[in-house]
Amino acid sequence: MKKPFSRKYDKGNIEVVTKGDTHHMKPRNPKHKLLLGPGPSNPDPRVLRAMSEPTLGHLDPDFVAIMDETTELLRYVFGTENELTIPISGTGSAGMETALVNSLEPGDKAIICIAGVFGERMADLAGRMDVEVIRVDAPWGKPVDPEDVRLAVKQHPDAKIVAIVHAETSTGVLQPLEEIAQLAHENGMRIVVDAVTSLGGMEVPVDRLGLDFVFSGTQKCLSCPPGLAPITVGERALEFIRNRKTKCPSWYLDLSMISRYWGGERFYHHTAPINMIYALNESLRIIKEEGLEARWARHKLNQKALIAGLEAMGMKLVVDPEYRLPSLTTVYFPEGIEDVPARMKLLNEFGIEIGAGLGDFKGRVWRIGLMGTNSTKPNVLFLLAALEDVLVSMGARVPQGAGLQAASEVYRGA
Amino acid sequence: MKKPFSRKYDKGNIEVVTKGDTHHMKPRNPKHKLLLGPGPSNPDPRVLRAMSEPTLGHLDPDFVAIMDETTELLRYVFGTENELTIPISGTGSAGMETALVNSLEPGDKAIICIAGVFGERMADLAGRMDVEVIRVDAPWGKPVDPEDVRLAVKQHPDAKIVAIVHAETSTGVLQPLEEIAQLAHENGMRIVVDAVTSLGGMEVPVDRLGLDFVFSGTQKCLSCPPGLAPITVGERALEFIRNRKTKCPSWYLDLSMISRYWGGERFYHHTAPINMIYALNESLRIIKEEGLEARWARHKLNQKALIAGLEAMGMKLVVDPEYRLPSLTTVYFPEGIEDVPARMKLLNEFGIEIGAGLGDFKGRVWRIGLMGTNSTKPNVLFLLAALEDVLVSMGARVPQGAGLQAASEVYRGA
Repeated sequence: MKKPFSRKYDKGNIEVVTKGDTHHMKPRNPKHKLLLGPGPSNPDPRVLRAMSEPTLGHLDPDFVAIMDETTELLRYVFGTENELTIPISGTGSAGMETALVNSLEPGDKAIICIAGVFGERMADLAGRMDVEVIRVDAPWGKPVDPEDVRLAVKQHPDAKIVAIVHAETSTGVLQPLEEIAQLAHENGMRIVVDAVTSLGGMEVPVDRLGLDFVFSGTQKCLSCPPGLAPITVGERALEFIRNRKTKCPSWYLDLSMISRYWGGERFYHHTAPINMIYALNESLRIIKEEGLEARWARHKLNQKALIAGLEAMGMKLVVDPEYRLPSLTTVYFPEGIEDVPARMKLLNEFGIEIGAGLGDFKGRVWRIGLMGTNSTKPNVLFLLAALEDVLVSMGARVPQGAGLQAASEVYRGA
Repeated sequence: MKKPFSRKYDKGNIEVVTKGDTHHMKPRNPKHKLLLGPGPSNPDPRVLRAMSEPTLGHLDPDFVAIMDETTELLRYVFGTENELTIPISGTGSAGMETALVNSLEPGDKAIICIAGVFGERMADLAGRMDVEVIRVDAPWGKPVDPEDVRLAVKQHPDAKIVAIVHAETSTGVLQPLEEIAQLAHENGMRIVVDAVTSLGGMEVPVDRLGLDFVFSGTQKCLSCPPGLAPITVGERALEFIRNRKTKCPSWYLDLSMISRYWGGERFYHHTAPINMIYALNESLRIIKEEGLEARWARHKLNQKALIAGLEAMGMKLVVDPEYRLPSLTTVYFPEGIEDVPARMKLLNEFGIEIGAGLGDFKGRVWRIGLMGTNSTKPNVLFLLAALEDVLVSMGARVPQGAGLQAASEVYRGA
């Protein structure tokens, strides 16, 4: 970009003075692409339109009504009656930080289950808080072993929380949440759950398991742009927040203050991201219209068809069948295929984005997301057709039409 | 809202199954209102449209190009060549927290200038970080006295930062930034500046004064919805970040990591709020088209007309002339007028929002913002006309038409 300058030009009979040089700038016209990576996924067009509704003041009675409705819809999606169920004004990682800074005090011990990038992130985050982190590790692509958690809980009965990623976005593994939540609660510990890639795509059993802190992000199975982190806080956790001895180390994410704005008091904390909340409101309405159970079943069916297609094309799945995430599938791509050129071909020729492998899986694995609005039969068949074309054009041996046929059979049998 | 239920209804010849009850919910149709309070202000329609452009992946080459352009435009608006000039993924207060957690280490001393809500907020925030806070207080509605800062700096030569709110949104006072920045730098301290209500409405002299950490928000004079906090970090501050002995206490706001995503490396940190960044990009293009100097002059002129009008109507300004903010005017409303009913009348009858007084000024003062797109002659005259109507209808003695006439004279003389 050059330095600003002034220029006069004629536009009909109106003289326009242009002070900057934005008319020389490339137009910002992002093309529609099909986002089948680990997120963001494509928002429903209704959600994008909602974002451009007129901005209201953050204490305007009309906006307050939208806030109330949004929390009510969030409770539906989280399966909870928790009063403190709100969107945090940041992306999913801000939700993670909110959960940890509000569930721990300096000197506390935290048991953290680590089986990928997002478990590591929780450990990094807790480590910044003068908290002793007890790691329970699992190999990449595997679930955490509840027996290891049982051992950690026994060895550290003074730990205050157990933290677990429900749906590990870096590996596509669904973690054994039920057993681990039970272990935590039997030993008087609170459980902190990352539900970023599960919420809206499968059950997140908040009230059924009495989960204490559960956070998510808007850009995965809620089909809303990134920018908000829904969180729900149970009664036991709220009790801790009310009685903590030290202030929450973060002001921006301090739930004791934020809850006074979202609760009846409407006490000003920070200016809510108004238009993002319109978007979340609309995306939650769409989920309510479909119904949670129907939505979860849809995610399962499309995942099943995708997997049948990938396997018929000769590819191997990373995760054992019982731990596969309905919303995110990790697959070893064929040997001899170069990672980046193949994904770029898919993006440039077909407008489809899929995700690279992270950490241990870098350069060996692709991550394919079928999240929210994107989890459909047309998308599965389109992706399989495009993948076949890209792989064959790059020299891989893929049995012709086998992927599409296998996926179609799943749909016919459903 | 009632419990979800299932219902079938006929829509032409298509059978629609509605699982939720959103068709019973009140439509979310926020009306256009004129936001003349302390923020958010009305975004330009172009900015709202930009928000609804198709969501791209956070590593998509087309999105990366938009990121680069946005940082370039932010440098223009901040008046800086600082490389690390980016939007933080949160509202203005997240920008404040980013500046403080990245400018201090445990055990450090911080001199904080406090002359209203946002100075207090900085002290609260720093106090959560195992930092010793040295307060330099000023009465509400007054600027901080540079002599008091000189004394504090002399008494605490080991302090690491001086923090100041450039434009205190709770009082409408422009603080003496230049003198205080000089005092900080003469004594080897970094200066942290809250430019939330100044950026885009008046000069924020980042490079001219060598300011170290300067943060803002999108929802004031940038005329973009709330949700992002632009920040710029100078070379001296960057040097500190690179060499700090402890990790930044916040993971989400850790500039050493965030800068690796916004810099050439594109190292994944968290998923950027894609559509909010489209909005910021568009709002910055609009500023570039107008030109900064023209924009600052426009804010000054409209403020002058507003003040002339308010004074002609018999109201008293809170702030002495030389410290008045071009973007935000604080005024004592007429005695006998009830605060909330008057503002509600303005909102319900005219669709105009103005702000309540905070803290010491609660129930005595109104805050009137003329920010960004909203700082126009039509808005000034409309507000004065509406105010006269509301005040007269509530029994105040206001000389008929005097406000409009005084404001018009300012425009005729300009």
